[in-house]
Amino acid sequence: MAEPTATPGAASGPLVGPVEVVGAGLVGTSVGLACRRAGLEVVLSDVSPDHLRTAAGLGAGRRRRPEDRPQLVVVAVPPDHLAEAITAALAATDAVVTDVGSVKSGPAAAVHGSDPARADRYVGGHPMAGSERSGPLAASAALFDGRPWAITPHAGSAPHAVTLVEALVALCGAVPVRLDPVEHDRAVARTSHVPHLLSALVAARLAEAPGDHLALSGQGVRDVTRVAGGDPRLYGQIVSANAEAVLALLGEVQRELETVVGAVARGDRDGLEAVLARGVAGTRAIPGKHGAPPAQTRSVFVSVPDHPGELARLFADAGAAGVNIEDVRIDHDPGRPVGLVELTVAEVSAEHLLGSLEARGWLTHR
Amino acid sequence: MAEPTATPGAASGPLVGPVEVVGAGLVGTSVGLACRRAGLEVVLSDVSPDHLRTAAGLGAGRRRRPEDRPQLVVVAVPPDHLAEAITAALAATDAVVTDVGSVKSGPAAAVHGSDPARADRYVGGHPMAGSERSGPLAASAALFDGRPWAITPHAGSAPHAVTLVEALVALCGAVPVRLDPVEHDRAVARTSHVPHLLSALVAARLAEAPGDHLALSGQGVRDVTRVAGGDPRLYGQIVSANAEAVLALLGEVQRELETVVGAVARGDRDGLEAVLARGVAGTRAIPGKHGAPPAQTRSVFVSVPDHPGELARLFADAGAAGVNIEDVRIDHDPGRPVGLVELTVAEVSAEHLLGSLEARGWLTHR
Repeated sequence: MAEPTATPGAASGPLVGPVEVVGAGLVGTSVGLACRRAGLEVVLSDVSPDHLRTAAGLGAGRRRRPEDRPQLVVVAVPPDHLAEAITAALAATDAVVTDVGSVKSGPAAAVHGSDPARADRYVGGHPMAGSERSGPLAASAALFDGRPWAITPHAGSAPHAVTLVEALVALCGAVPVRLDPVEHDRAVARTSHVPHLLSALVAARLAEAPGDHLALSGQGVRDVTRVAGGDPRLYGQIVSANAEAVLALLGEVQRELETVVGAVARGDRDGLEAVLARGVAGTRAIPGKHGAPPAQTRSVFVSVPDHPGELARLFADAGAAGVNIEDVRIDHDPGRPVGLVELTVAEVSAEHLLGSLEARGWLTHR
Repeated sequence: MAEPTATPGAASGPLVGPVEVVGAGLVGTSVGLACRRAGLEVVLSDVSPDHLRTAAGLGAGRRRRPEDRPQLVVVAVPPDHLAEAITAALAATDAVVTDVGSVKSGPAAAVHGSDPARADRYVGGHPMAGSERSGPLAASAALFDGRPWAITPHAGSAPHAVTLVEALVALCGAVPVRLDPVEHDRAVARTSHVPHLLSALVAARLAEAPGDHLALSGQGVRDVTRVAGGDPRLYGQIVSANAEAVLALLGEVQRELETVVGAVARGDRDGLEAVLARGVAGTRAIPGKHGAPPAQTRSVFVSVPDHPGELARLFADAGAAGVNIEDVRIDHDPGRPVGLVELTVAEVSAEHLLGSLEARGWLTHR
């Protein structure tokens, strides 16, 4: 590891900088901004001069110079270039190297294979943030606040390297989740990659639909297909890089889909309901807000005219009632000039909120 | 058709009442409330005395008496009992009969088969509203405002019967979408039933996940699986009643899933990206707000502390900027004490809104 040069105004703890960020896209630039916010020196590189100029202009760091000796290198490039960029960083510096890629076992194996002597300085990472937007203009030092950030040491990662990556995660305000690289990849196959692929299969059916059929689209199909709007090239890279874990789960999906088809074809209502009930159990297994067990909440529905200021008025009136709003959803069915707004609040607060809103003239739906 | 008795304060047009509602659940009670709002007499029946008492107590109508002679009967019972209840209503009265069931070709065929002489008085209907909540307590006269409401006459439906159902849809404030019963069922298989089943298959994988894997759940998997939380018995009935259309689409899904599995297994990036690109096209095919072509919108991200009044303050400040908010989404990643709120606004308004919010001290994410 490089002997770090203390920077004026540096954060306390093991991470003192400089931090090098390779790849000034959304996540890389956000890491740079978070490190700068903590007073660390940040040096940037990117194959795109535009991205580099934009990121530097936003205050995420300065352009890397040959004589720079970073303490930590954060590799933030697309999945296809990850292993190569990590290996290059290990060879070019004696810094600790981490990355922010969506898949972790491939890069770890590549680093081991190509450069075993230096592999102890590599610790993988994956912040759960920013998959739908892209580019440095969307970056923010606050992007990682309170988000899970997987830290995935391999068997040969040095303890001081892990500590340094943990310090980066803390500096970014994220919540560390320690996982083995292979376990990480299995987890995101389940929580991200397979949901994305099935969302795309639902959405692909809409692309082929007769036009008047889609007039019946409600909020449900909009929710199921939202993630399918993501960049096909990026998701193609991500899914390909996690082929083994994705294929294992897709095999399960194929078998259960076969079960569903058989049950519907035979009129086997119990078989169909059993699959649907497993789905209900799955929705309940997702951790609640702030990692807490799912709380008892209730939805309050309010009709809101669709013009400026009306939502403001609604939230002002809800705020005046002293009720914390856990979630909000605006109904988007086509043709609806009056919006139906769903406010999710603690069960115990629902009646009070309804009464308060009605007293202020809102049309609620009990 | 019954010679309608004019009710004092009745709505103008062909629908003068009385309206009979069979089944005082969410949708039936809401129809009753909308008819009462228009001054029509409404009579109610339900196998559950509790539902009946609650609906009547809410002002959705009075209990049906043997001597009542409705002009229009609205059947609002679960799918399994639909055909039977429609046939019974045609036999018991000389009223026009419609229903609000999720599937339309089965009931039409059943009515034709069992009671061809009376089938001219039956016209199917399906309001796109209320699938996640249930029971009369959730009902509202405003439930249908601006929502699509499919009207599905069969070949033998009498024109005056269609006109009367159209009048009901107008009275409820909904937007009529005329479809043949078979076309309707194909449409909802695509926009509702198959999305629900695939959402359940994604969610079922979560039910089986090692606990620490779900710590990586983000907003994407929450969106994809939301509808899978619906009542398995109700969705089992709905899917079973639309078996033919659902099976045709599930066959397409199976073939395309096979393609995905093959592409991932072979490392065929082009094949995988082609499926993902069809998904993107599908998300773009969904009609925009108010049935308009999808507008150019942009997302503005703002960090909001998670306590009462903060959302109110945000919306008040956004309202002061005079910008109409098209959509709002609160990030629910676990462990996030500061919420990330996404405001969707017209592209042309985004910079103005960002500037206004920043001037008022909000942390925006550009």
